[in-house]
Amino acid sequence: MSKRVYNFNPGPAILPLPVLEEAQRDLLDFKGSGMSVLEVSHRGKAYEELHNETETLFKELLGAPADYRVLFMGGGASAQFALVPMNFLPAGAVADYILTGSFAEKAFEEAARVGEVHSAASSKATHYDRIPRPDEIQLSPDAAYVHITSNNTIFGTQWPVLPEFPGVPLVADMSSDILSRPFDVSKFGLIYAGAQKNLGPSGVTVVLISPEMLAKVNKNLPVIFQYTTYAKNNSLYNTPATFAVYIVNLVLKWLKANGGLAAMEQRNREKAALIYDALDASGGFYKGHAAKEFRSLMNVTFRLPGEELEAAFVSEAKQLDLIGLKGHRSVGGMRASIYNAMPVEGCRALADFMRDFAKRNG
Amino acid sequence: MSKRVYNFNPGPAILPLPVLEEAQRDLLDFKGSGMSVLEVSHRGKAYEELHNETETLFKELLGAPADYRVLFMGGGASAQFALVPMNFLPAGAVADYILTGSFAEKAFEEAARVGEVHSAASSKATHYDRIPRPDEIQLSPDAAYVHITSNNTIFGTQWPVLPEFPGVPLVADMSSDILSRPFDVSKFGLIYAGAQKNLGPSGVTVVLISPEMLAKVNKNLPVIFQYTTYAKNNSLYNTPATFAVYIVNLVLKWLKANGGLAAMEQRNREKAALIYDALDASGGFYKGHAAKEFRSLMNVTFRLPGEELEAAFVSEAKQLDLIGLKGHRSVGGMRASIYNAMPVEGCRALADFMRDFAKRNG
Repeated sequence: MSKRVYNFNPGPAILPLPVLEEAQRDLLDFKGSGMSVLEVSHRGKAYEELHNETETLFKELLGAPADYRVLFMGGGASAQFALVPMNFLPAGAVADYILTGSFAEKAFEEAARVGEVHSAASSKATHYDRIPRPDEIQLSPDAAYVHITSNNTIFGTQWPVLPEFPGVPLVADMSSDILSRPFDVSKFGLIYAGAQKNLGPSGVTVVLISPEMLAKVNKNLPVIFQYTTYAKNNSLYNTPATFAVYIVNLVLKWLKANGGLAAMEQRNREKAALIYDALDASGGFYKGHAAKEFRSLMNVTFRLPGEELEAAFVSEAKQLDLIGLKGHRSVGGMRASIYNAMPVEGCRALADFMRDFAKRNG
Repeated sequence: MSKRVYNFNPGPAILPLPVLEEAQRDLLDFKGSGMSVLEVSHRGKAYEELHNETETLFKELLGAPADYRVLFMGGGASAQFALVPMNFLPAGAVADYILTGSFAEKAFEEAARVGEVHSAASSKATHYDRIPRPDEIQLSPDAAYVHITSNNTIFGTQWPVLPEFPGVPLVADMSSDILSRPFDVSKFGLIYAGAQKNLGPSGVTVVLISPEMLAKVNKNLPVIFQYTTYAKNNSLYNTPATFAVYIVNLVLKWLKANGGLAAMEQRNREKAALIYDALDASGGFYKGHAAKEFRSLMNVTFRLPGEELEAAFVSEAKQLDLIGLKGHRSVGGMRASIYNAMPVEGCRALADFMRDFAKRNG
């Protein structure tokens, strides 16, 4: 086996090793077909079974209501930023957005190009270091929907408990924490997630949508931009990203074999605690960006005393095969992305290095 | 090595074996990074080099003008059916479509949901068995653009010579014959191609666009749907389908190593002739769907005397590892998709089988 590093990149991100090994085996011959998994027809039996199994597994793992639909779409979460208002924000209505980071802002700005939007709450004033408290959230009367971002990849914050807004459809971008913990899907009208963090490779976006939302889809859009087109045609109206769906399928099976979402949450808490503990015990050498109670279990963001030390940190970490730790330019410092597929050992190795580095440079 | 069949599926389709073998090697460790090619960051140097090289190679192989831009987009060619009119068909203008098959029709219908469209010519009356002659094409005065489909996957027809309409921007869906023969890119304003036929796996659409078209993009769209967003950000505004782009990169290198587009055309003519000759020499046992002068070099469509014989043909072919020959339901009969990656030997094996089957059943 070749060397394997600990990949802390924010996405495309680390995938489970058994998934990669199986994909490698199937790359020349998928299920004895004499064809690569990259070559099989999306209309063939082998792919259709895999496609349907992926939908079923996704719903099963999330405990989604039976009448919710799983859709495989293209264009990334960024396309969803536009498709959500195009489908669900009619003229004369207003959509509420809770602004908790860069991607929430992007979703808000894109929706503003489509219709009327309202910022129901924002933590921008404190550089998105936290999630707004319930009493800070000012919903519009009769909002078409409320949009949230469950985990903020760049700033390293996460809704500790996902909110509820009875009577208003809740739409969530869960790109960076989908399947990382159990939650009640039935509170959501629509959930979307670009695959490249917790689900698979980039190139497919998984959408989970309620029947009530499907009934509200704007029928005056191009057919390819209506969620109903995907629901009615089982995401086979046009050619889906078959290989990306295949990898998602393998990731879901790995997740199920490893205990499902409850086990993932426990493991994710353990992993995050290793790093946050090293941070908190550093006597102020490391400074977390996120307010403690809103710390993300997926993306740990922190600064060091000065950019020179930060550059040294990244460079020394790399020598130890701890890769992808440089933070996003809008926050600076470090970011350790520790999605489901990151092993506990990776987080322990990072925490050990953090202690060692602080001792030598503190 | 495992058994390898001849895969005549229309897309996702056969890929060059050396491409699959290299992808298999990189699947656990990409360029010694200790990460799978599925895991590398789209902001990292290794991926960015590959991304840029893919753009350069694509333009080089096509001999595209230096100021044309290559874009990697999501959503398939079906998304382009909507994006082209959204970007280039302003209110008050009209766009001309030449209808040569099912996908041309879909593009036309999708555009009709966006703005005013005009059918400049159609071969629907003869079940899309041919490409309209120049004197049959009635352009609108001052059309915003003319849209063509260069090869019709389902009906098995192809423009023998690509048309020119001086003064009107020409937009082409080349999903099923891109890179199969040389042509003059400078005659086109925009070319798009879903990757899953001649370029790579499904999940990425490659767009080639002129500076004149980029200057015309509708700025009132969601940002993610403006071609300029991809051009300005080198298709890295959001996360591209990195693995799909990687496979496209390998396919382009394979193509270049095998002589480029002129060599491809020669080989494609040789391959298609093997099958069409078997068809023409069958004394009417096989009946081609396409009129002779518009026969596609990519998709060969033909019928047999009766559906029972057709079912027997598919089933016996499968025994000989000739896979994916059943035609589209709208045409019936057989379809052999013989894109660049199909070896001459595959076409010869099919032609041999056709002769043998006709002898036994004619």
